[in-house]
Amino acid sequence: MKVGIINVTGYSGMELARLLYRHPEVELTCVTGRSAVGQKLGDFLPHLGDIDLTITEDLTEAVDFVFSGLPQVASALALTPVIRQGIKAVDISADFRLKDPAEYQQWYGAEHPSPDLLPQAVYGLTEWYRPQIAECSLLANPGCYPTSALLALGPALKEGLIGEDIIIDSKSGVSGAGRGLGLMYHYAEANENVSAYGLGGHRHLPEITQEIKAYVPGFQPRVTFIPHLVPMTRGILSTCYAPLKDGALPSGKAGEEALRELYRASYKGEPFVRVMSQPPQTKQTLANNYCLVYPVIDHRTNRLVVVSVLDNLVKGAAGQAIQNMNLMAGFEEGTGVDALAAYP
Amino acid sequence: MKVGIINVTGYSGMELARLLYRHPEVELTCVTGRSAVGQKLGDFLPHLGDIDLTITEDLTEAVDFVFSGLPQVASALALTPVIRQGIKAVDISADFRLKDPAEYQQWYGAEHPSPDLLPQAVYGLTEWYRPQIAECSLLANPGCYPTSALLALGPALKEGLIGEDIIIDSKSGVSGAGRGLGLMYHYAEANENVSAYGLGGHRHLPEITQEIKAYVPGFQPRVTFIPHLVPMTRGILSTCYAPLKDGALPSGKAGEEALRELYRASYKGEPFVRVMSQPPQTKQTLANNYCLVYPVIDHRTNRLVVVSVLDNLVKGAAGQAIQNMNLMAGFEEGTGVDALAAYP
Amino acid sequence: MKVGIINVTGYSGMELARLLYRHPEVELTCVTGRSAVGQKLGDFLPHLGDIDLTITEDLTEAVDFVFSGLPQVASALALTPVIRQGIKAVDISADFRLKDPAEYQQWYGAEHPSPDLLPQAVYGLTEWYRPQIAECSLLANPGCYPTSALLALGPALKEGLIGEDIIIDSKSGVSGAGRGLGLMYHYAEANENVSAYGLGGHRHLPEITQEIKAYVPGFQPRVTFIPHLVPMTRGILSTCYAPLKDGALPSGKAGEEALRELYRASYKGEPFVRVMSQPPQTKQTLANNYCLVYPVIDHRTNRLVVVSVLDNLVKGAAGQAIQNMNLMAGFEEGTGVDALAAYP
Amino acid sequence: MKVGIINVTGYSGMELARLLYRHPEVELTCVTGRSAVGQKLGDFLPHLGDIDLTITEDLTEAVDFVFSGLPQVASALALTPVIRQGIKAVDISADFRLKDPAEYQQWYGAEHPSPDLLPQAVYGLTEWYRPQIAECSLLANPGCYPTSALLALGPALKEGLIGEDIIIDSKSGVSGAGRGLGLMYHYAEANENVSAYGLGGHRHLPEITQEIKAYVPGFQPRVTFIPHLVPMTRGILSTCYAPLKDGALPSGKAGEEALRELYRASYKGEPFVRVMSQPPQTKQTLANNYCLVYPVIDHRTNRLVVVSVLDNLVKGAAGQAIQNMNLMAGFEEGTGVDALAAYP
Repeated sequence: MKVGIINVTGYSGMELARLLYRHPEVELTCVTGRSAVGQKLGDFLPHLGDIDLTITEDLTEAVDFVFSGLPQVASALALTPVIRQGIKAVDISADFRLKDPAEYQQWYGAEHPSPDLLPQAVYGLTEWYRPQIAECSLLANPGCYPTSALLALGPALKEGLIGEDIIIDSKSGVSGAGRGLGLMYHYAEANENVSAYGLGGHRHLPEITQEIKAYVPGFQPRVTFIPHLVPMTRGILSTCYAPLKDGALPSGKAGEEALRELYRASYKGEPFVRVMSQPPQTKQTLANNYCLVYPVIDHRTNRLVVVSVLDNLVKGAAGQAIQNMNLMAGFEEGTGVDALAAYP
Repeated sequence: MKVGIINVTGYSGMELARLLYRHPEVELTCVTGRSAVGQKLGDFLPHLGDIDLTITEDLTEAVDFVFSGLPQVASALALTPVIRQGIKAVDISADFRLKDPAEYQQWYGAEHPSPDLLPQAVYGLTEWYRPQIAECSLLANPGCYPTSALLALGPALKEGLIGEDIIIDSKSGVSGAGRGLGLMYHYAEANENVSAYGLGGHRHLPEITQEIKAYVPGFQPRVTFIPHLVPMTRGILSTCYAPLKDGALPSGKAGEEALRELYRASYKGEPFVRVMSQPPQTKQTLANNYCLVYPVIDHRTNRLVVVSVLDNLVKGAAGQAIQNMNLMAGFEEGTGVDALAAYP
Repeated sequence: MKVGIINVTGYSGMELARLLYRHPEVELTCVTGRSAVGQKLGDFLPHLGDIDLTITEDLTEAVDFVFSGLPQVASALALTPVIRQGIKAVDISADFRLKDPAEYQQWYGAEHPSPDLLPQAVYGLTEWYRPQIAECSLLANPGCYPTSALLALGPALKEGLIGEDIIIDSKSGVSGAGRGLGLMYHYAEANENVSAYGLGGHRHLPEITQEIKAYVPGFQPRVTFIPHLVPMTRGILSTCYAPLKDGALPSGKAGEEALRELYRASYKGEPFVRVMSQPPQTKQTLANNYCLVYPVIDHRTNRLVVVSVLDNLVKGAAGQAIQNMNLMAGFEEGTGVDALAAYP
Repeated sequence: MKVGIINVTGYSGMELARLLYRHPEVELTCVTGRSAVGQKLGDFLPHLGDIDLTITEDLTEAVDFVFSGLPQVASALALTPVIRQGIKAVDISADFRLKDPAEYQQWYGAEHPSPDLLPQAVYGLTEWYRPQIAECSLLANPGCYPTSALLALGPALKEGLIGEDIIIDSKSGVSGAGRGLGLMYHYAEANENVSAYGLGGHRHLPEITQEIKAYVPGFQPRVTFIPHLVPMTRGILSTCYAPLKDGALPSGKAGEEALRELYRASYKGEPFVRVMSQPPQTKQTLANNYCLVYPVIDHRTNRLVVVSVLDNLVKGAAGQAIQNMNLMAGFEEGTGVDALAAYP
């Protein structure tokens, strides 16, 4: 299958190239990137030096499958003709995630370029929408924060364990902000520093809320989501808090075990989610496609606390995108994204 | 005033030495440390090379004031004779923080060495207990996490803005774990890594709860406190969540302004707490004694979110300890701890 | 081919496990590790959770090939019976690198456990000894620093470009020191810190000198080698300095081009060495098996300066070890170690 | 003394403000900065919130002493009228370091704005030029790399111990590159990464060479200087290599002792240079004005190796600038820059 990457020069795009290069079912044949048109990929990005391609301005040859690593709005603009041509595509940007164009406009400050395509887009949280993903042509790859939060809360939501007051406190490495320069991401400023941001409302909040509502009809979550920047390159850890419903779980240690059992059952057979017995660490997913989930009960307050970790550029972006491509193309789901984490 | 430091070889102890050396009212005359007895301080800790002292096993000469940087239990054992001799002391360990010896035993797994001294110990959150601190002989210096959480929540608690469901999600640099070796603090493991710990209950939880209850009589907080390790040396950021009581604040932007005004009024004149107009960063307090506080409203859920930052070794340990010593000794409160942050 | 790893619990051992798990020609069937005997590999090292093995004390079953990730001396002791049994082995420790047992004793402070095996051991710098490696049964995997230095200097040595005054200034990430605890590797000490060490003579110096002499008969290098610890987990950058012989290269820009051309010719066809046109960065080899080499001329002083980078745990340890195993077993050389770097 | 800082918004400028605010002999009365004119200093740079000043476009009031933290060329342009007015000034940029305007043009690519001022400028390596500094009106503050290299080599040069083949391999934290954005300093690129730069010739090379020649008349050094970027915010470590002259020092351990004794004698009484008995670490000078120097002999090759460390923003910039101001103004040399290092 011939595959193209739109905007290989951002972090999602280069991570796609890294992973696709070793994908046995795929030939990477076209990479675009406005800032480096005409350059050899390996000259612009030396770690991709084994890939013999020249960066082009647009998709230049027939490809069977397209990934877009462009920012929002630009991504929808670039993908719309591709989709209309009948080529399957995965959009790593946020453009096809929110179902409601009005909500899109509110959060992204722009009219949606092709709202008519929204109904056919499938939200690509693989573990929740596997059948729909396998059938779709246009996949909206989830945000990195939503992936970590939804996989942390999914089983508790599905089993009706928790009430609607949900707090998601996420900590992300700096690559999540992309390759665009900014003082907040300048090394001497970001290093040895932690800060909260998006306190007035981060764009991943409506995505999380939409998906929780879709997952549990009738549930009206009141979600507070606060992301934080921590001094590392890759990785997200989300700590999710919610009240446990009375009687939802046995008391004491038995409750803990029942909870973990329920999570294990829920994720049974999942190739890229693991329920842990010890608190997970982001480094345990470095450069790999896993999401590690650790649910516990705060017995003093009868709250559920779930910690999840993943690599924002892999399970939070390019890895999940390829996992979804595999489903869309009929390949084995883990093909090309089954490397173990590069720990330490 | 002749001052001694018990256990100068831990991070709190060496930070005390660093700050006291430039304190104009104090002469550092004795430093102890079991692992380095007989060595010159500057040979064991080269950054303290300007201080011409030899590390001893015990307090060897008459001192007027003592700091202990020992771990719990050992600290109470070492300080008890000092206190009984009538020498004023600041304990940086947790030994004199919890008022109830049974609670101490439960959380620290040891019988309290001198429970009869507990009633005279004053909890040294300077901003809350200034008059009592000025009068006391035995000061229990607050934990780093409690300092950040209590200063973040204080004004909202005092004004009755919030309900009892409180969540404190803290992110700490690795020096908070001390100088003792451990795989979790081994560079190759801790670097590029974030993890949650203490999920079964961290020792700073009862301290936080005790102090909130003491601060607001009748208030019965249900606190979930989850600390996280982030890859930096110094700094704590705490994100605190609590439900706002209906009508506690005006709606919309006016509420935000009223909230900030209320926090500013509450901390008016405080030399080391600043209410910020922008989200603060831990680096803005690097090596300095400030706690920066930023309260906001999550209007979608009517929750209070307060972010606070401080340097765990300064305002969270040695700096606040010296601030308290200044009060106890009748010096100007900021003497010796008024350096600006070493940003970037 | 059934493969065993002795001491999977060190960084080299766990990196071997990570890479071998995806090696298509190999089945990892046995992993030993004294500190964790009886534990599931995935419980002890969660990032290896996909590998269903229990850690044993000794090699418990028939294996066709053995890697040792033990420290020196212990490694020779463990491997000697394996070798005598006729099983092929790669030793990642230093035990079989120095040809002269007296030199071994001088630098490692112990009598060599099996000096009779030294003559059959082949030094596994793949690019220099490919034919010998393919024939050998006992392979001494090169040290991380020597790999970076020898690949940097090789073409200049071979072509007789340089004189004998060689200075190698290396900068290594902290994982090079292994998983054993030490204050120098304690996060709060190693972070935001650079230091030189081994100034009295590092153990990799005799290895470098031996190999240069073997590579260029009659050449008597005077090597100064100073390693430095830098605050990152993985990666080595070596900056190598040597006087250019008069007339060895054309003057001016032509000299630069001739030099690079000569390096390119020398490494032509090499799967894991690349001669760069821009100064390389350690991150360009993160978790990958490349060594990137950049030679330049300091025209003001007529010196050669060569910068090389690699990942100390991959090309500097486990990756090169597998590259060598591939040769020894008759597999394609790059099998299992051809992943691109996990940049950024 | 009323002091102004031109360009407080760069790292040197803000470090000057941090240190001057606590300087007992100085009142900071004016700070300029083009990107933030009209803003309160504490709004733009929250860590300077205690300083109640508004950022202006130009020096707005009578000041008695001026520091410039502007980049080269701009700095000379801004300082020239100040100097001509008879106000004493310290230039942290490179504009008045090179004595020869032609060399300035060659390395900085611009004609010098006021070459007539060059003869009166004194190179401010305090330890070498104390009397001249005390008398001067225009001080050229040394570069961070030259400070580390010259203090490392000074005693060996002065005593005639070494030959002319000098190699300086320096490792710098990223703040040395300033606050201007660039991909090389983007967190996700600079973190977990080491690289060499300036391989064609760094601007600090002619400065080092000029000063060595001035220090040892007749000595014609052949200096290779290669700087490296390492992932930390502050700190420089320079490793300097030079051949020892035959017979310059006793052989064996006695040579080492003679060498250290000679260095100690040379730096006797210096308030900010310390000759170490153990290899120094950059962190031992964090946020402090020391340069730590460690000379050793590589006996195998009869080479001198000297390691030096300093904080590039303090002894390498703002701290040394204030040390020089103290001399120029007749204050005690260490005033305001005598804080101990903020280790860890």
